[in-house]
Amino acid sequence: METSNYKGLQSVIWAGEHLDLLDQRLLPGEVIHLPLTTAQDVWEAIRHLKVRGAPAIGIAAAYGVYLGSRLEQSKEHWLHAVNQASAHLATSRPTAVNLFWALDRMRARAKELENSELDLEACKDALLGEAKAIQSEDEETCRLIGEHALGLFEDGMGVLTHCNAGGLATAKYGTALAPFYLAQEQGMKLRVFADETRPVLQGARLTAFELQQAGVDVTLICDNMAGMIMSKGWVNAVIVGTDRVAANGDVANKIGTYSVAVLAKAHNIPFYVACPLSTIDLNTASGELIPIEERDAEEITEGFGKRTAPEGIKVFNPAFDVTPSEYVTAIITEKGVIRPPFDVNLKKLFETL
Amino acid sequence: METSNYKGLQSVIWAGEHLDLLDQRLLPGEVIHLPLTTAQDVWEAIRHLKVRGAPAIGIAAAYGVYLGSRLEQSKEHWLHAVNQASAHLATSRPTAVNLFWALDRMRARAKELENSELDLEACKDALLGEAKAIQSEDEETCRLIGEHALGLFEDGMGVLTHCNAGGLATAKYGTALAPFYLAQEQGMKLRVFADETRPVLQGARLTAFELQQAGVDVTLICDNMAGMIMSKGWVNAVIVGTDRVAANGDVANKIGTYSVAVLAKAHNIPFYVACPLSTIDLNTASGELIPIEERDAEEITEGFGKRTAPEGIKVFNPAFDVTPSEYVTAIITEKGVIRPPFDVNLKKLFETL
Repeated sequence: METSNYKGLQSVIWAGEHLDLLDQRLLPGEVIHLPLTTAQDVWEAIRHLKVRGAPAIGIAAAYGVYLGSRLEQSKEHWLHAVNQASAHLATSRPTAVNLFWALDRMRARAKELENSELDLEACKDALLGEAKAIQSEDEETCRLIGEHALGLFEDGMGVLTHCNAGGLATAKYGTALAPFYLAQEQGMKLRVFADETRPVLQGARLTAFELQQAGVDVTLICDNMAGMIMSKGWVNAVIVGTDRVAANGDVANKIGTYSVAVLAKAHNIPFYVACPLSTIDLNTASGELIPIEERDAEEITEGFGKRTAPEGIKVFNPAFDVTPSEYVTAIITEKGVIRPPFDVNLKKLFETL
Repeated sequence: METSNYKGLQSVIWAGEHLDLLDQRLLPGEVIHLPLTTAQDVWEAIRHLKVRGAPAIGIAAAYGVYLGSRLEQSKEHWLHAVNQASAHLATSRPTAVNLFWALDRMRARAKELENSELDLEACKDALLGEAKAIQSEDEETCRLIGEHALGLFEDGMGVLTHCNAGGLATAKYGTALAPFYLAQEQGMKLRVFADETRPVLQGARLTAFELQQAGVDVTLICDNMAGMIMSKGWVNAVIVGTDRVAANGDVANKIGTYSVAVLAKAHNIPFYVACPLSTIDLNTASGELIPIEERDAEEITEGFGKRTAPEGIKVFNPAFDVTPSEYVTAIITEKGVIRPPFDVNLKKLFETL
């Protein structure tokens, strides 16, 4: 599924003999591509957050398994090399579910290949092919999400997004940002508003950056300006990503998403959530059951390398919030657009897969 | 109207022979009091924003007129010295209405005194008395606002505020923050939530600081967390200051105020606006007529001495927004609590003055 006119940045690119990785830590100040040639290079990139975003981490790790076993000269020892590389990469970020999923898949494929009649070089090529498949499947998922989302938008609309659910975090396109890239491929004009997304500023540092690089019309605002631009009639839809969707359609996402959803409802603006099916968790009945991580006060008090609040001040810094399903107009997946009642329709969706 | 147990900071203090000014530029990192002994000292303090807040600027300027004329040895030339000091101070911040109001009042008083039988030293003392009167009248206004506001709160309540309408900007107490200081004097417990207030962070730098210094229970949050803490039931009321109230009760205030008002309404939380009568402008029919200043993009893209957004990004940075009167539960002035219909009740208020 190649798209010749995708103008977005790609964070993970297989360059023929090595992995070409965009160092996300330095964005937006510097755009540096790192050549990764060994599993250890990939381990360090994941560990030190040069690559972020669950899908992008999984893709990088898959290539890391190939890089870590490609110098093995004996087919007899090859599976051992694969398993060693995989075990090492698994220690790079211990809580990343996509990382383990990708490593498991690479190991299982290598085991299949070892039992096949293929010679060592063919096995290596096939394993590289598996990493490419993980990447292209993610790209296809994001593209389908983008197509379904774009069907909800019209030429000339203003669309607000919060945080970063973009191409940098995935193979390509992202989830919430996918329709903006597809609109551009198709010559459709959308005006995007990006919340800067305090405290860590993913909107300013990543969303504004990747859309600007792609030539998408994007305007950066502070989070507290969302209500005002809605009242001016500049926003016709909101679209955000999510970390987890509960069985009843409640949505956990970056802190501030709930405020945006309430403001959208008050202004009769549709509020869309874009995500792959893998983000929908039917085992979690409702959003109240999703634990909310609280993070260090310093993200708020000295998040810009300079102290901007008094010493010792009490701070509340939740990383996420939960938007109850009644604020959600639709959930957009690679399988289409799901509308309320979400408890019924999400269950139905998974039954028909 | 002395209150012995006020624990708030005072930004302008008459220290017997000189003005003791808290340098607000350095807050919250450093608490430095500057001794100002001449009109030129005061001019520089106003010009270089060491003192901010319309009432505080007016008070400082009034003392500046006294300082600029107290060395004059002849009653014949004294009024000239007063007028010279006043003319010079008027050039410190050309758009500050309170500054001109205070200077006019000091000049008018000096003219009265010159025509009196009082000797020079008595004239000087009386002029110093006028500066003190300007200060104590502002303190009294703020205290009355605080008392009326406090009547709306109950022990144990959580109250959210946005930006800084505090004691640092006035003689004492502030407007929106006045009830918190009075509650503390009376042993009543309120839990205050302070929005950090992007882009310039007046909430983090000033509100959190001055309440913390006074021992008030204050928790700092990012602006986008307001909705979440309301949904948790932590906020029982919102109180903010204002730059201008229109005749129909529409309220112009720091950007982000409108979002807070919409969120409050969605959670059935009362939204209060605290201000002196001088802020209510019956000549402005509605909020739509209030011009909204747009400020430099750099406040958002590199507001903390470090670039946090891509070069060349398009930014929308309004300094204020307008909250329509239907979101306002009550307007709290030194004359009492005004409730809807505001168009009728604000008019009535001024007719009875």
